[in-house]
Amino acid sequence: MTTPLALVLNAGSSSLKFALYDIAAAPVERARGIVERIGGAPRLKAAFRADLPSVARDLASEAVHDHAGALGAVLFLIEASFPDARIVTVGHRVVHGGTTYAAPIVVTPEVLAELTRLIPFAPIHQPHNVSGIEAAQAAFPDALQVACFDTAFHRTQPWVNDTYALPPDYYARGVRRYGFHGLSYEYVSGELARIAPERAAGRVVIAHLGNGASMCAVEGGRSISSTMGFTPLDGLPMGTRCGQIDPGVIFYMLAEEERPIDDVQTLLYTESGLLGLSGLSNDMRTLEASGTAEADAAIAYYTARIREQVGRLAATLGGLDALVFTAGIGENSPRIRAEVCERLGWIGIELDPERNAASAEVITTSASPVEVRVVPTDEEIVIVRAAKSLWEAGDAACRPFPPDRRLSDTKV
Amino acid sequence: MTTPLALVLNAGSSSLKFALYDIAAAPVERARGIVERIGGAPRLKAAFRADLPSVARDLASEAVHDHAGALGAVLFLIEASFPDARIVTVGHRVVHGGTTYAAPIVVTPEVLAELTRLIPFAPIHQPHNVSGIEAAQAAFPDALQVACFDTAFHRTQPWVNDTYALPPDYYARGVRRYGFHGLSYEYVSGELARIAPERAAGRVVIAHLGNGASMCAVEGGRSISSTMGFTPLDGLPMGTRCGQIDPGVIFYMLAEEERPIDDVQTLLYTESGLLGLSGLSNDMRTLEASGTAEADAAIAYYTARIREQVGRLAATLGGLDALVFTAGIGENSPRIRAEVCERLGWIGIELDPERNAASAEVITTSASPVEVRVVPTDEEIVIVRAAKSLWEAGDAACRPFPPDRRLSDTKV
Repeated sequence: MTTPLALVLNAGSSSLKFALYDIAAAPVERARGIVERIGGAPRLKAAFRADLPSVARDLASEAVHDHAGALGAVLFLIEASFPDARIVTVGHRVVHGGTTYAAPIVVTPEVLAELTRLIPFAPIHQPHNVSGIEAAQAAFPDALQVACFDTAFHRTQPWVNDTYALPPDYYARGVRRYGFHGLSYEYVSGELARIAPERAAGRVVIAHLGNGASMCAVEGGRSISSTMGFTPLDGLPMGTRCGQIDPGVIFYMLAEEERPIDDVQTLLYTESGLLGLSGLSNDMRTLEASGTAEADAAIAYYTARIREQVGRLAATLGGLDALVFTAGIGENSPRIRAEVCERLGWIGIELDPERNAASAEVITTSASPVEVRVVPTDEEIVIVRAAKSLWEAGDAACRPFPPDRRLSDTKV
Repeated sequence: MTTPLALVLNAGSSSLKFALYDIAAAPVERARGIVERIGGAPRLKAAFRADLPSVARDLASEAVHDHAGALGAVLFLIEASFPDARIVTVGHRVVHGGTTYAAPIVVTPEVLAELTRLIPFAPIHQPHNVSGIEAAQAAFPDALQVACFDTAFHRTQPWVNDTYALPPDYYARGVRRYGFHGLSYEYVSGELARIAPERAAGRVVIAHLGNGASMCAVEGGRSISSTMGFTPLDGLPMGTRCGQIDPGVIFYMLAEEERPIDDVQTLLYTESGLLGLSGLSNDMRTLEASGTAEADAAIAYYTARIREQVGRLAATLGGLDALVFTAGIGENSPRIRAEVCERLGWIGIELDPERNAASAEVITTSASPVEVRVVPTDEEIVIVRAAKSLWEAGDAACRPFPPDRRLSDTKV
């Protein structure tokens, strides 16, 4: 009998991230990688947990001009590296589950229709998630397709933190605060419950600081409030997104500057945030290394907004027991963590500079009333656990690659 | 010699508030009132500090269809009540002073042109302020016209709290966080310095809760940060304004619902906030009295946002020494103050229920680390002080009403 594998896919606008797990028992990661610059000069990078060498190769742009092409390239690599493998389930990261999906779900035609219906709620992200699912259905018609939602973890939020001050028919029609980054928050709060159960039982703020960034107030493991709202544009400033902004600015750009809606949306999604403020880069590593006044100002803006949200979310929680940093910047930048925690002594945070410099698990002093931790996130393991669980629960047959869909002859 | 008087005007979309002061020495209020429903069925209400009876009368709609007509009615009343008076200066509340005006200023033709240029920055409020000035110039051509700005107090904010995460040319072009309610914050922080100088020297959050609402972080008397931003739409929910909202909601309404920009703007300015959530009223007294689930939900939303901002602004200040409630709701609603301070024990607020019920000066217990106060605001006295000071500094002659502008024959 061959090993049952699960594939996890995270389809972005011009990238397809993947991870491969052996799910015979508890999921064991076998490979992880990304196809990037889809539609441009595509490139595949992958790393294996076994004795196989890492891979980094350019792909033929005519073959990899969409997610289906990118998935073909991934499949080619998997077949070559794991000839006996059978992919029995594919778990998808889906940004938006609307008000309907508060848990992972098997993708049926009805579910796919609903996910497509939600595209206007996340026009920048959701279309790619849907085309990722369609590509996987075509490539693995017999595998169980499972959708996992970045919004699901936040569906526990009370109404008062889930709504805007609009007439109630907007709430009924789905104009709510969905939150996002829920798979990361689910993982991190689960990890916290494992490694620091007393803190996890209390009032916790998690700062997910990646290229996208948000923060979440978690009480006893449940999401109470978050900084992102209806779309992934709101809340903290991000690599290229503005974060919180007066809606009056939008009206000003549209009505006074007479800019088209698409232009303004592009500005706020792709030319703002750290990139816009610094005029230099959306990459925190580049900004930290540059040392220009503009880069330092962008960093000061970024950390000021995070610090404020620690205060805001602590007020929502009625106090603070732990603050957790996660995702690319949160896990790897001592400077950002230090600047955030500066002037938070009043809330009970006493950073230990050496622990912070080492990105230790706990970066506060032993006497610090509030514990600050670094917890590396792993959204893929959350997805594969869900996919495995639904696969085992269901009657989905465990079939090998369908021969007519072997992609060994794809030019990659 | 007749008494020199100063008139203070606050021109709204359909109202003209006024206050009259004797400025022979320290300003003494002589009368205060409002013309409301301008353009509809106008009505004048006024109260006098002397032995004169209060006034409430309907006005002829054909005579009072604009701010000039409303000012005519006010003038008629003043002439009748203070026959010997000479109005030597008129102080105007102006919502927007842009980046130029960080202090009150004498209105010259150049200043009026600049205030007109700023209309796109506050399209709902600024045009009425400008037409209020024009009406007063016509009525009192020899009086010194002084503009006082709701934005001026906030010009001390550091860049990091004054900008959005946009490319820097937006900041240069004036897309900044202006704050607003600055005349109220100036008065309240001045009062606090007088009655509680030690607290005022520290970290103070002021909550201006009227039909418009915002909060301000004040450190040593200087504005550090506020909840309103580029326009008076942002921050806290208000009577009919939504307050903070994901810009993605605007894009959704415009692009997906295909609503015209003006419609969306009208929705967010006039049909949202407490009115929108409750479906009942924009008036907190009505909501508190009604006891419906919708009214209670709207109140819960309102107080949750204020509570969050206490936390956010405390984080900006590096802690909290005092919280001050002011303006209509802040001064008069024990319930709102209690709901805000509920669950703020962690920050050091211990409300005294009896003091709060009595709207006492200090409404926390004597042991409360953070002092919570109620300070009635008075924007008019800030304006008249500025107008008096500029009038005394200048060489503006102290002339009686120009006879050809006596409005005794106006049909009111």
